[in-house]
Amino acid sequence: MNQLLEDLQNKVNQKTKPIGALGRLENIAIQIGLLQNTLTPQLNSPHILIFAADHGLAKSGVSPYPQEVTAQMVLNFVNGGAAINVFAKQNNIALKIIDAGVNFDFDEKLPIIHAKIAKGTQNSLENPAMTLSDCEKAFQKGQALVKELHQKNCNVIGFGEMGIGNSSAAALLLSYFGKLPIEACVGRGTGLDDEGLKRKATILHEVQQKHKKVIASKNPMEILATFGGFEIAMMAGAMTTAAHLKMLVLIDGFIATSALLVANALDSTVIDACIFCHQSEEQRHQKMLDLLKAKPLLNIGMRLGEGTGVAVAYPLIVSAVAFLNQMASFGEAGVSEKSV
Amino acid sequence: MNQLLEDLQNKVNQKTKPIGALGRLENIAIQIGLLQNTLTPQLNSPHILIFAADHGLAKSGVSPYPQEVTAQMVLNFVNGGAAINVFAKQNNIALKIIDAGVNFDFDEKLPIIHAKIAKGTQNSLENPAMTLSDCEKAFQKGQALVKELHQKNCNVIGFGEMGIGNSSAAALLLSYFGKLPIEACVGRGTGLDDEGLKRKATILHEVQQKHKKVIASKNPMEILATFGGFEIAMMAGAMTTAAHLKMLVLIDGFIATSALLVANALDSTVIDACIFCHQSEEQRHQKMLDLLKAKPLLNIGMRLGEGTGVAVAYPLIVSAVAFLNQMASFGEAGVSEKSV
Repeated sequence: MNQLLEDLQNKVNQKTKPIGALGRLENIAIQIGLLQNTLTPQLNSPHILIFAADHGLAKSGVSPYPQEVTAQMVLNFVNGGAAINVFAKQNNIALKIIDAGVNFDFDEKLPIIHAKIAKGTQNSLENPAMTLSDCEKAFQKGQALVKELHQKNCNVIGFGEMGIGNSSAAALLLSYFGKLPIEACVGRGTGLDDEGLKRKATILHEVQQKHKKVIASKNPMEILATFGGFEIAMMAGAMTTAAHLKMLVLIDGFIATSALLVANALDSTVIDACIFCHQSEEQRHQKMLDLLKAKPLLNIGMRLGEGTGVAVAYPLIVSAVAFLNQMASFGEAGVSEKSV
Repeated sequence: MNQLLEDLQNKVNQKTKPIGALGRLENIAIQIGLLQNTLTPQLNSPHILIFAADHGLAKSGVSPYPQEVTAQMVLNFVNGGAAINVFAKQNNIALKIIDAGVNFDFDEKLPIIHAKIAKGTQNSLENPAMTLSDCEKAFQKGQALVKELHQKNCNVIGFGEMGIGNSSAAALLLSYFGKLPIEACVGRGTGLDDEGLKRKATILHEVQQKHKKVIASKNPMEILATFGGFEIAMMAGAMTTAAHLKMLVLIDGFIATSALLVANALDSTVIDACIFCHQSEEQRHQKMLDLLKAKPLLNIGMRLGEGTGVAVAYPLIVSAVAFLNQMASFGEAGVSEKSV
């Protein structure tokens, strides 16, 4: 493995450019070469999976949007009208929409992967969001979906989500995995005002009080079941399997990264397969990135989810692989190297 | 104009996403709509122009690469082996390579725009880099090239450059326009070590001493002639005309931005047409961006020039225009709006 790293670094350094002049693109090229165990990595059949699910907690007023919006946005994805549709089409990324647990009966004929575990999670103010069994079912479903894509020659996969209330679930996961007070973990989600933000923190603090025993258990899967959501559990499973299959894992914003916190707690090697596509404007995303020692590619104030950060950053990843495979070396081009 | 701004903002806000959730992409969409005076902007026939030229100052040891590399890299561009070739091809951007003043006789049959003013500038330690007349000739040539592209329906144009020694010219321009001591303006260019960096600052300080009178003149065109280069003068002219023709102007790194400093001094409205594609790792680029109150799109440690920052950032600009034109509104998609 060290020999490959050395060979990749040499290949990068022999390209007709000053050493290091392509910055992060050089690191990404090398990361993907190592992941794929080759000097000539390829990106095949890129996909973004959008996992959608509802959250019992949404009924407690943690989001300014009504729960119906989750299902409405799934239909918007199906009809091609959402931001992720536009960006995925632009950058030739295939989209799959997964009903992980939306509180709506979708027509079975719609081009959706019907993987509903239940019609939304329980309200974690009262009960764990999911039973441990349902949580594991969601996790395994995510794993199975990725295996299927891998068999179809896909080797790069991004994760998006939709779920009114899911920034609260993500905040609870950040609070646990980051050992941070919940006040430091809540953000405005889809657009809460100051009062709404305060209410959200109070509600989430109550949720934590309710489930003190689970927190003390230090079991990542129990934590995920109690505070997470079906879409987060599926993403966590999907990320784990994708990394094991040496697929490139593209991480979006606050919610997708909360799933990675779980995956990382279960297996810290998962992160070797990950590229952090953007830093969300959602205020606490930076805390998650710090925990994972991750440096995002883009920082352009996006905070939409759906995998949009992945979709717009993807061309940079294509650029990284392209320069490694296509640029001429100093020798090939007859260009003089640095003289001092 | 204010009505158009309001209409553009409303159009953006009616898209199926929380207000502001696409961050900088929203600002860019609105900027391009205003520039093109429309609610449905289009990006037509995108081009990157690479202006190449040599610098008399290179003979004084301000770069670790020999001057021959300028011509060698032009041939590398022609043969498709450079980073900019790879990225432009990836993102469907047409490339034009302009010999603005390379110290080499290129075969006339090569697909180069032969616009050589002279075989490199004078060494500014001894003389002004260009006569005022040659500088104006270069400036006007840049203007003419852009007019030609505009007539062929191109409305988005990025600027790249190649020229061993040109980071010294750019540093001298920054020092003048930013009223900064030269020590605060020099960087490592293509890769100087500490000693080389110190030598570069000393040499450039001598250049400034030599031309004190010109500095006192406060005439931007004289400053450009004395300290700039043929590629910088052509870029400055090209940027000015592109902005006047309401073309979108894509700004690359340290050298391209130095040309914009000149264009901006001649006409401060030029900047309304500009998108700053990336922040160069070349240390003093940030000072230029600060002077222009500019916020770059990417900050991924690139410092190559050639227009590579433009080429890799371009898909983000396409994304901005695409969401404005293609995303569904709340009304169209039947999605509920924010309730609180």
